[in-house]
Amino acid sequence: SLSAVSHSGKCSRVMVIGGDGYCGWATALHLSKQGYEVAIVDSLVRRLFDEQLGTHTLTPIASLQKRVKRWRDLSGKSLSVYVGDICDFEFLESSLRAFAPDAVVHFGEQRSAPYSMIDRGRAIFTQHNNVIGTLNVLFAIKEFAAECHLVKLGTMGEYGTPNIDIEEGFITINHNGRSDTLPYPKQASSFYHLSKVHDSHNIAFTCKAWGLRATDLNQGVVYGVMTPETQLHEELINRLDYDAIFGTALNRFCVQAAIGHPLTVYGKGGQTRGYLDIRDTVRCVELAIANPPNLGEFRVFNQFTEQFSVNELAKLVIGAGKKLGIEVEAANVPNPRVEAEEHYYNAKHTKLVELGLEPHFLSDALLDSLLNVAIKYLDRVDRALIMPDVSWKKVGVKPRTVMSENMA
Amino acid sequence: SLSAVSHSGKCSRVMVIGGDGYCGWATALHLSKQGYEVAIVDSLVRRLFDEQLGTHTLTPIASLQKRVKRWRDLSGKSLSVYVGDICDFEFLESSLRAFAPDAVVHFGEQRSAPYSMIDRGRAIFTQHNNVIGTLNVLFAIKEFAAECHLVKLGTMGEYGTPNIDIEEGFITINHNGRSDTLPYPKQASSFYHLSKVHDSHNIAFTCKAWGLRATDLNQGVVYGVMTPETQLHEELINRLDYDAIFGTALNRFCVQAAIGHPLTVYGKGGQTRGYLDIRDTVRCVELAIANPPNLGEFRVFNQFTEQFSVNELAKLVIGAGKKLGIEVEAANVPNPRVEAEEHYYNAKHTKLVELGLEPHFLSDALLDSLLNVAIKYLDRVDRALIMPDVSWKKVGVKPRTVMSENMA
Ligand SMILES: NC(=O)c1ccc[n+]([C@@H]2O[C@H](COP(=O)([O-])OP(=O)(O)OC[C@H]3O[C@@H](n4cnc5c(N)ncnc54)[C@H](O)[C@@H]3O)[C@@H](O)[C@H]2O)c1
Ligand SMILES: NC(=O)c1ccc[n+]([C@@H]2O[C@H](COP(=O)([O-])OP(=O)(O)OC[C@H]3O[C@@H](n4cnc5c(N)ncnc54)[C@H](O)[C@@H]3O)[C@@H](O)[C@H]2O)c1
Repeated sequence: SLSAVSHSGKCSRVMVIGGDGYCGWATALHLSKQGYEVAIVDSLVRRLFDEQLGTHTLTPIASLQKRVKRWRDLSGKSLSVYVGDICDFEFLESSLRAFAPDAVVHFGEQRSAPYSMIDRGRAIFTQHNNVIGTLNVLFAIKEFAAECHLVKLGTMGEYGTPNIDIEEGFITINHNGRSDTLPYPKQASSFYHLSKVHDSHNIAFTCKAWGLRATDLNQGVVYGVMTPETQLHEELINRLDYDAIFGTALNRFCVQAAIGHPLTVYGKGGQTRGYLDIRDTVRCVELAIANPPNLGEFRVFNQFTEQFSVNELAKLVIGAGKKLGIEVEAANVPNPRVEAEEHYYNAKHTKLVELGLEPHFLSDALLDSLLNVAIKYLDRVDRALIMPDVSWKKVGVKPRTVMSENMA
Repeated sequence: SLSAVSHSGKCSRVMVIGGDGYCGWATALHLSKQGYEVAIVDSLVRRLFDEQLGTHTLTPIASLQKRVKRWRDLSGKSLSVYVGDICDFEFLESSLRAFAPDAVVHFGEQRSAPYSMIDRGRAIFTQHNNVIGTLNVLFAIKEFAAECHLVKLGTMGEYGTPNIDIEEGFITINHNGRSDTLPYPKQASSFYHLSKVHDSHNIAFTCKAWGLRATDLNQGVVYGVMTPETQLHEELINRLDYDAIFGTALNRFCVQAAIGHPLTVYGKGGQTRGYLDIRDTVRCVELAIANPPNLGEFRVFNQFTEQFSVNELAKLVIGAGKKLGIEVEAANVPNPRVEAEEHYYNAKHTKLVELGLEPHFLSDALLDSLLNVAIKYLDRVDRALIMPDVSWKKVGVKPRTVMSENMA
């Protein structure tokens, strides 16, 4: 039988799509450490983006081949590796059938909002890559592993910034004397975030029509780079993006602080979002896998631990910097994005805690450790990559083959 | 200047994407008749679907070239024609720049739910064709006709069948003591309907980020085939689909009645939807064009005139048939779709009426005329095409190159 669930019903084989990326690599090692059989599926296209744009991770990451070998040597555990593009169904099908997972954790998408706003080609690439890739995963599971649990990474950005509390995936609406619990309305604000909204709708449909089981993890912004596994050896180190295209707010600020560059607060800095430590990302995924939904169920968790405005983050980084003897200040730069800079924000995030998540909080200690990593790799920082160069309003149809220092 | 709006600010040049199709052809002629300069953009891929699946329109339609020539000969009005695929940006750009429209009416998508559920390839084709095509239209308008009004065809099917009233695009939600007006939650139930949900989210974003203006017409099921323009001449006749893949409920029932085939009610027949006469489709589009939204506004109209359950439709057709001496009955066939067969349904549709729509109602007269068209072309009916052959649950990854009479 092609069914992938082991006879005990316990999940033991996990396929991590996007397992060479920032969240995926840390998750693959964590699950391997916890005793799961893990396969990594990745096209390595994220490494290609770096080559094409002239960006790079702050931390010097090893090749996937070396990483996997090093993990085996250190832990005694093997990771299966399938290098290919999930938009290529033949590749995906053969990987899925060969590995026969109980759960598929799907990180394998183009995940940068600015990247999706560089030019028309990359906007289209992002939606094609993400939406078609996920459709292929859904078809492959339906056909070859119908009981397999899909754990799909979404983003908190799908919800936008509504003036009411954000619930976890669904909201009960009372209207004209009647009531229903419906998908929470989505207001995404980049072609990347929109691709996640599309995915969520597609996945919900297949759970209903085909009886698949899925967990949509609407993740906040991830910070940090070390997990117990990735810090075991230089060749296991995780990527850390600090440039204006792939670097996310807190990670970027820490690197800016380390080199004494003013923290680039976009616009008024009142933009509030949910954040979480990468050590919580890997734990959340483990919790989702260990507690699968029923067949036919489409479940949504908001995966973050704390909310901060950009100004609050900047203040925390400035304070932590002081303790390390670093003097740095915040600078308000014109916002390259189109987004509300002052808004209500209150998003629920209790479901993962109910499953057992014990959050790491953004303390000075953590900032120290993030800052210290930044300081350690100081000489790898390219200052030309820090200022925003992609404008939501100016994105055009002409291909931008080389990024200029200051287009916006 | 590349700006497409004429100096009076009045809309006079309209590009109809999908102008060779069922709604598009009737709309193109209607607008031409009303004095608009009209261009048709179409890849003619709908005609290819018929060839590939062995389906065909009940009415013998002329080639696009003949249609356009006949209209010029009869009306003295020329239609510009651009044959090509809007997923090809170079083609779209050159057509848009050459014609310089004030409004783009976008009908040009794969619009059959069953087609999108035949196999993986067609599911992917549908989402790719529709989502990428619409993204291209948005980029082309942004870059080459920023003031142009996009009138985009959506579907009432985007809303699904919630247990509360369906509003026009947005709903005001009171939640935990706060309130906001948000996009109405979407619950689409085929890869086709989902593609429309994706489009709506993408369009809303570009109105906000780029200041585009757009009207999303969430259309109900269209019935009828004759408009004053298309009935002028045999070579202007519109297509009428009756097969299980492209035929929509009422049109299909009338053809079934004409040949004495039991009316194929899927499941319990309690499925309720909004319907409208094709003469109202063309008028609604005209009203939307004549009353454009402001720049930056994303407007949604529910475009239908009456609600019916499938059972009610069957009863109306049976009754109308009787008057013409036709004895026909309804037959409940297993529902090939996954959908609620008994549900609450109350959808608002006042905005187009406020703009001046005077609906044609589904009266016996209309049924007569639809039935009479069906009777006129009776000998063109292929009975093998009537029974549903595409199952929502059985859609697989293997390409189905030939449709069998009874797969479900
Ligand atoms: N990093 C964050 O702060 C954050 C926040 C919210 C959500 N997420 C989501 O989590 C997931 C992982 O994010 P990340 O930061 O690790 O991104 P990443 O870019 O570091 O990793 C993504 C990986 O997926 C691979 N990939 C992309 N498209 C692929 C395809 N078609 N076939 C095979 N592999 C493909 C890339 O090569 C890369 O290794 C993404 O889906 C992202 O949207 C991340
Ligand atoms: N017919 C209905 O009952 C109904 C109901 C609700 C909404 N709609 C919507 O109205 C629109 C028109 O529907 P219809 O019934 O006239 O469909 P149709 O298939 O008869 O017409 C669509 C036309 O678009 C063209 N087309 C498709 N993809 C294209 C592409 N990539 N480039 C260029 N041309 C392309 C096709 O060749 C076809 O001529 C669709 O968007 C549909 O979803 C229709």
